[in-house]
Amino acid sequence: MNQYQSASTATPAQAKFRPPTVDQVRVEGFFGTRIDTIATVTAHTLLDRCEQAGMLDQVDPDRPNPGLRIPFQAGNATVSTQMFWDSDFGKSIETAAYALFRKPDPVLEARVDAIVEAYARLQDDDGYLNSWYQRIEPGKRWSNLRDCHELYDAGHLMERAVAYFHATGKRRLLDIMARYADHIATVFGPNPGQRRGYCGHPEIELALVKLGRATGEQRYLDLARFFIDERGAQPSFYDAEARARGQDPVDYHFGTYQYMQAHEPVREQRHVVGHAVRAAYLYAGMADVSTEFGDATLRPALEALWDHLTQKNLYVTGGFGPSAQNEGLTFDYDLPNETAYAETCAAVALVFWASRMLGLGADGRYGDVMERALYNGALAGLSLDGTRFFYENPLESRGAHHRWTWHRCPCCPPNIARLVASVGTYAYGVSDDTVAVHLYCESVADLVVGGTALRLRQATRYPAEGEVTVKLEPATPSDFTLSLRLPGWAQSVTLRLNGEPVETLALTAQGYLHLRRCWTAGDRVDLSFDMSVRRLHANPRIGVDQGRVALMRGPLVYCLEGADNGNTLNAVILSPNSSFRCEAVAELGDAVMLVTESVREVTADPRALYTVAAPERAPTATRAVPYYAWDNRAPGEMLVWVRQEG
Amino acid sequence: MNQYQSASTATPAQAKFRPPTVDQVRVEGFFGTRIDTIATVTAHTLLDRCEQAGMLDQVDPDRPNPGLRIPFQAGNATVSTQMFWDSDFGKSIETAAYALFRKPDPVLEARVDAIVEAYARLQDDDGYLNSWYQRIEPGKRWSNLRDCHELYDAGHLMERAVAYFHATGKRRLLDIMARYADHIATVFGPNPGQRRGYCGHPEIELALVKLGRATGEQRYLDLARFFIDERGAQPSFYDAEARARGQDPVDYHFGTYQYMQAHEPVREQRHVVGHAVRAAYLYAGMADVSTEFGDATLRPALEALWDHLTQKNLYVTGGFGPSAQNEGLTFDYDLPNETAYAETCAAVALVFWASRMLGLGADGRYGDVMERALYNGALAGLSLDGTRFFYENPLESRGAHHRWTWHRCPCCPPNIARLVASVGTYAYGVSDDTVAVHLYCESVADLVVGGTALRLRQATRYPAEGEVTVKLEPATPSDFTLSLRLPGWAQSVTLRLNGEPVETLALTAQGYLHLRRCWTAGDRVDLSFDMSVRRLHANPRIGVDQGRVALMRGPLVYCLEGADNGNTLNAVILSPNSSFRCEAVAELGDAVMLVTESVREVTADPRALYTVAAPERAPTATRAVPYYAWDNRAPGEMLVWVRQEG
Repeated sequence: MNQYQSASTATPAQAKFRPPTVDQVRVEGFFGTRIDTIATVTAHTLLDRCEQAGMLDQVDPDRPNPGLRIPFQAGNATVSTQMFWDSDFGKSIETAAYALFRKPDPVLEARVDAIVEAYARLQDDDGYLNSWYQRIEPGKRWSNLRDCHELYDAGHLMERAVAYFHATGKRRLLDIMARYADHIATVFGPNPGQRRGYCGHPEIELALVKLGRATGEQRYLDLARFFIDERGAQPSFYDAEARARGQDPVDYHFGTYQYMQAHEPVREQRHVVGHAVRAAYLYAGMADVSTEFGDATLRPALEALWDHLTQKNLYVTGGFGPSAQNEGLTFDYDLPNETAYAETCAAVALVFWASRMLGLGADGRYGDVMERALYNGALAGLSLDGTRFFYENPLESRGAHHRWTWHRCPCCPPNIARLVASVGTYAYGVSDDTVAVHLYCESVADLVVGGTALRLRQATRYPAEGEVTVKLEPATPSDFTLSLRLPGWAQSVTLRLNGEPVETLALTAQGYLHLRRCWTAGDRVDLSFDMSVRRLHANPRIGVDQGRVALMRGPLVYCLEGADNGNTLNAVILSPNSSFRCEAVAELGDAVMLVTESVREVTADPRALYTVAAPERAPTATRAVPYYAWDNRAPGEMLVWVRQEG
Repeated sequence: MNQYQSASTATPAQAKFRPPTVDQVRVEGFFGTRIDTIATVTAHTLLDRCEQAGMLDQVDPDRPNPGLRIPFQAGNATVSTQMFWDSDFGKSIETAAYALFRKPDPVLEARVDAIVEAYARLQDDDGYLNSWYQRIEPGKRWSNLRDCHELYDAGHLMERAVAYFHATGKRRLLDIMARYADHIATVFGPNPGQRRGYCGHPEIELALVKLGRATGEQRYLDLARFFIDERGAQPSFYDAEARARGQDPVDYHFGTYQYMQAHEPVREQRHVVGHAVRAAYLYAGMADVSTEFGDATLRPALEALWDHLTQKNLYVTGGFGPSAQNEGLTFDYDLPNETAYAETCAAVALVFWASRMLGLGADGRYGDVMERALYNGALAGLSLDGTRFFYENPLESRGAHHRWTWHRCPCCPPNIARLVASVGTYAYGVSDDTVAVHLYCESVADLVVGGTALRLRQATRYPAEGEVTVKLEPATPSDFTLSLRLPGWAQSVTLRLNGEPVETLALTAQGYLHLRRCWTAGDRVDLSFDMSVRRLHANPRIGVDQGRVALMRGPLVYCLEGADNGNTLNAVILSPNSSFRCEAVAELGDAVMLVTESVREVTADPRALYTVAAPERAPTATRAVPYYAWDNRAPGEMLVWVRQEG
C-alpha cells in the first residue's frame, strides 16, 4: 500500500483539483447496480426509518413537539432520540437527492420537498436551524459545542442542500442553508463579540467548502478556514465553555480532547488519535481548506497524519479505529480482527479524506487508499438488497455479526448510502489543465477542462475485470493532461492510445499516468490491469495476522464465509502456490468468487480444548468472496486473514 | 486436559477427603523458596500497603474515623477506599499468619496481634463486624447484599482467623469470628424473622466450611449450606432487597444476576457465567458443602460447570474470564490472548474450586487443572521478588503489561500470596482410609490416616525434574491407600515400590495410582514422570491460536519473552520436529529455560503495513521461559502461543 514513498510533486503546488458535482457523472456497471438499489429501495427506506423514529416530528413546527420521546436505554439498540438527528435526517435526504438524479421519482421528490418546507418553517428569523435546540432543548443553543454536535448537524444539513441543488436544480434548500451559514458566521469568528469555538465533531468544515463551491461565495470558505484555524488553540475553548456551563473541564467524559482532535492546533498534529470518524472528517476539511486557499502550512500535518494512519493503523479493508470504547484509535499496529470496530462511517470518512488529499493533484497514495476503503471497509456497510447496514466491520466473525435494519445511532446507514449514490463524484478530479481519473467504473462524465466541455466515457467491467476503455469527446480539440490512476495493487499494466501500445514508465509519476496532448473527439485510451489474485502479508508488528494472508483481486479484499466453506474457518490452511479459479456467484450480484485447493485441519477430538496430538490435514476446496458481499447469505463465520504455510 | 471422560467412581460416594491444615505441611524446594520470600518480604509489604491505604484507620475504633477518604477516581489506579477492604486486609493477615508458621517473626506477630485487637474493639456487642458498615456507612448493614460484599468480607475475615489459629495456635481471632458467624446465623436463615439472603460475591460459604472444620461446630457448615441452597431462588432476594432500598431491580448495573451466579438455583446451573472469581468461589463452596453433607444433588451442577469451564472456557494457563467488562466469562471458546483479563484471583479461585472437587476422592481431572492453574495462571501473579502483582494475565503482550505494586482493587496481591504460602494444604487430601497426593513438592507432611499418625516426605526437584520419592513413616504399621496423582500431562511414568518396579496400569483409576497395603515406616515409593517438552494444539474453535502451539514441560506453560528473543515475537516460527535444550536461568530462580532452533521471518520493508512480498526466513535460536516467571527482567514482549508450521 505504500509504494509511493514521498509526497507528490508531479503537479504544481498551486494546482487545485475539484471533484465534479453529482449531476456531472452517470455511473453504470458495478456501482450503477448498487445505485439503482439505493434509488429504488434504500432512499425510501432511510426516510421511512427516520420518520418512524420521529425525526420529522421533531423538525416540523406544525407537528406536536415530541420532546425527548425515547431516551437512550441500555438494551434498546434500535431507536432513541439523539441530539444529532438532524445529521442523520440530513444524510438521508442527501441520499434521496442522489436517488432523484438517478431516477425521476415524483413521490420521493414530493416527500423531500415537504421535509424541506418543514425545515423552512423551523428556521428562526435569525437563520438558526437545529431541531434539537429549537424544539427539545430551547434556549441552550451554542452552549456545548464540545459534546452536542450542533455545528456537525449544520454541516450535514448543508451537504444535503448542496446535493439537492445539484441533483434537482432547486435552490430553496440551498438558500435556507446559506442563510443558516450566514448566521453561523455572525456567531463564530475572530472579531470582538464572536465566539472562537468549533465543533466537537468536525464536519461543518468540509460542508462549508461544498457550500462555498456550490454558491460561489468565498465567505463560506473563509468560515471553514476559521474553524480549522481555531481548532485546538490554547487555552481550550472547550474548557472555558465547560466552566460557563458550571462544569469542571476535568470531568470530560473522554478525558482528553484527543478524542475530537482538539488537543493541539491542527497544524501541530502528527498522530491520528481519538474518534475515527471525527478524525477523518477533520482531515478532509483541512485538505479542502489547504486546496482552496493554497495553504501549504496545513500539508505537513496532513502528510504526517496520512502516513501515521496508512502505515500503522489501517485495516487491510480500509477500515480504521479498532476500539468500540472511543469508536476510534488505540495504539499503533493494534488491529484486532474479530473485535475490530472499524465503523462503516470511518471508512466512508476515509474516502472523503483521501478524495480531498487529491485536491492538490493526482497521487496514487491517496487514490489507492480511497479505492480500498470504498470497495471494502465502506461498501460492506450496505447489504446487497439495500435494506441493512453494518455499523462495526470486523475482519473475522464467528457467525453472530450481522447488518442492522436500523441503529440507535443511525449515522452509518445514510452515510454509506450517500457515498455509493454519489460515487461518480469521487471518480474524477478536474483542474484548469488536467482531468484526473481516480476510480474506474462504467460511466459517462460531463466535465469542463480549460473552459472546454469534455464528455469522458469509461467502458469497463471493473472491478470484475481489469480492462478499461476511456473515450474522450471534447467539444473542440483541446490541450490538457489526462491523468489515469495506476492502481498500486496492479502488478502490471498495459496502455494503448488510439489502439497503439504505449510504454507507460516515462509517463508515470506518483502512481498516475499523465497523458498530455491535444485531445480530439473519438480519442481512446485502453488500459489493462493485471487482475491476478494477490496474497497480502501483514507487518510483523500486527501479531494476530502473522502466518496468515489476506486475499485480494483488483481492489477487492476477499474473505472466507461459512456459507461456502462450512464453519471453523481457522482450520483452513492455504498453500502459497495454489492457483485460484474465478467463478461468478449469481446470488451475490455476479461477484467473482475465488476457488482454490487447500487443506483443512481435522482434530481427532473436537471436544478437547488442548491436545498434544497435532490435527490431521485433509485436502479441501476453499472459496473466497469479496468482503463487501459477506453476510448476504446464510449466517455463518467469516474470515479475512486466512492461514497460509510454506 | 480432558483424558478423563467421566466422573470419578473410583472412590465410594461417601468418601470425604479433607485437606491438611497449614501447620501440617512444611514445603521446601520450588515453592519453599517462594514461601520464604513471602514470609520475609510479601507478608510485610501487604500489611504496609494495607495500612498506607488506610485500612487500619478504618478498622480501629481508637483511631479517628477516616470516612470516605479517597473516593474512586478514574485515572487514580492505585488507591481508593473500597467497601470490601476488610477482605483485602483479611487476606493480607491470612498471608502473615502463614508467614509466621513459616518463620517466627515477633515483630510481624505483634503487628498482627495489634490488628486483631483493633478488630476486637470494633466488634459490636451483637457480634457484627464490618469496618465499612460500622465506621463509613453506619446504619446500613445488610441493606445491599447484592452489591456491597458484606458477607464476602465476613468470609475472608473468617479464613484469616482459621489460618491464624492453625499457624500460631492462638484462638482469639477464631473466637471473634465465631461470634460474628453466630450473629450472621441469627440474621440469615429459613425461619420467620430471618433473611433468606446471600452475598453478591460468594466466599462466605467456603469460609464457613473452614470455620466449621477448625472449630468442629456443625452450625457453621449448616449456615454454609443455607447460603448455597438459597442462592438463585425465585423470586429473587435481590429484587426484593433493591425495592426495599427504593431502587428498581431493572436498573441493576450488570443487567442480569448471572453476573454473580444468582440467576437460578445453583443446582440448576450448567454454564459457567458472569464474574469469574465469584463463580469459582461459589463452586468451591458448593463442592465443600457437597463433601461435608454427602449431598449428591449438587454434583450434576458441579460436574456440568466443571466441564463447561475446562472444555470450552479455560486458558491453557489455567486462567479464565477473558473480559474486563464483567471480569468474567463471555461466550464459549472466546479466549483472546493479548486482551485476556484472566484475573489472578480467578486462577487462584480455580485452585480453590479444583481442590474442593477432590473432596469426594482423587480424580485427575481436578488435580490436573488445580496444578495447571497454580503453576501458571495464578503463580504469574506474584513477582519473583515478592513485591509486585499482576491483576490481568494476558497470554501475549507487546511490552506494556507489568505487575503493579498495588491496585485500586487490591484483591489479587494477598490472594496469590496466601495461596502460595499455604500451598502445602493443597498437596494432600486425607480420608478415613486414604492419603491422596495431589501435588508434588519437596515437603514433609504430618497427617493422620485411620487414626494413625503418618509422616509423609516428598523428596523431589519438581517441577524442574520429574523424579519424586515419597517416603512413608506411619507411627505404627498401618493399612491404608496411598493415592498418587499421575499428571495427565505425563506421557509416561515409572513406579517403584521399595525399589522394585511396579506396573502402573492395573493400579490406575481416574488419573491416580492407588497403592493399598500395610505401610510401615521406611516404605518408599519412587515415581518418574516423563518431562519431555510438549506442544499443545488448541481446539480449532479457538481461532486465534490456530497455527500455533503452546509449549509445556511438566506442569509449566512456557512463553517467549523479548528479553531472550528480541521483540516481534510473532515473527518466530517453530518447527514441529525441533528439539529443546534445557538451561537453568539463575536470574529467574534457576527456572528451566527451553532453547530450540527455529526460524524468524524477516520482512523486506518493516515500514510497510501490508506487502505482496512474503517475508524471508532466517534461522534463529528461540528461548522460552516459564509463564509464571515472565516480566521479571527487562520489559518486552511476551507470547504463549507461538507459531509453528508443518
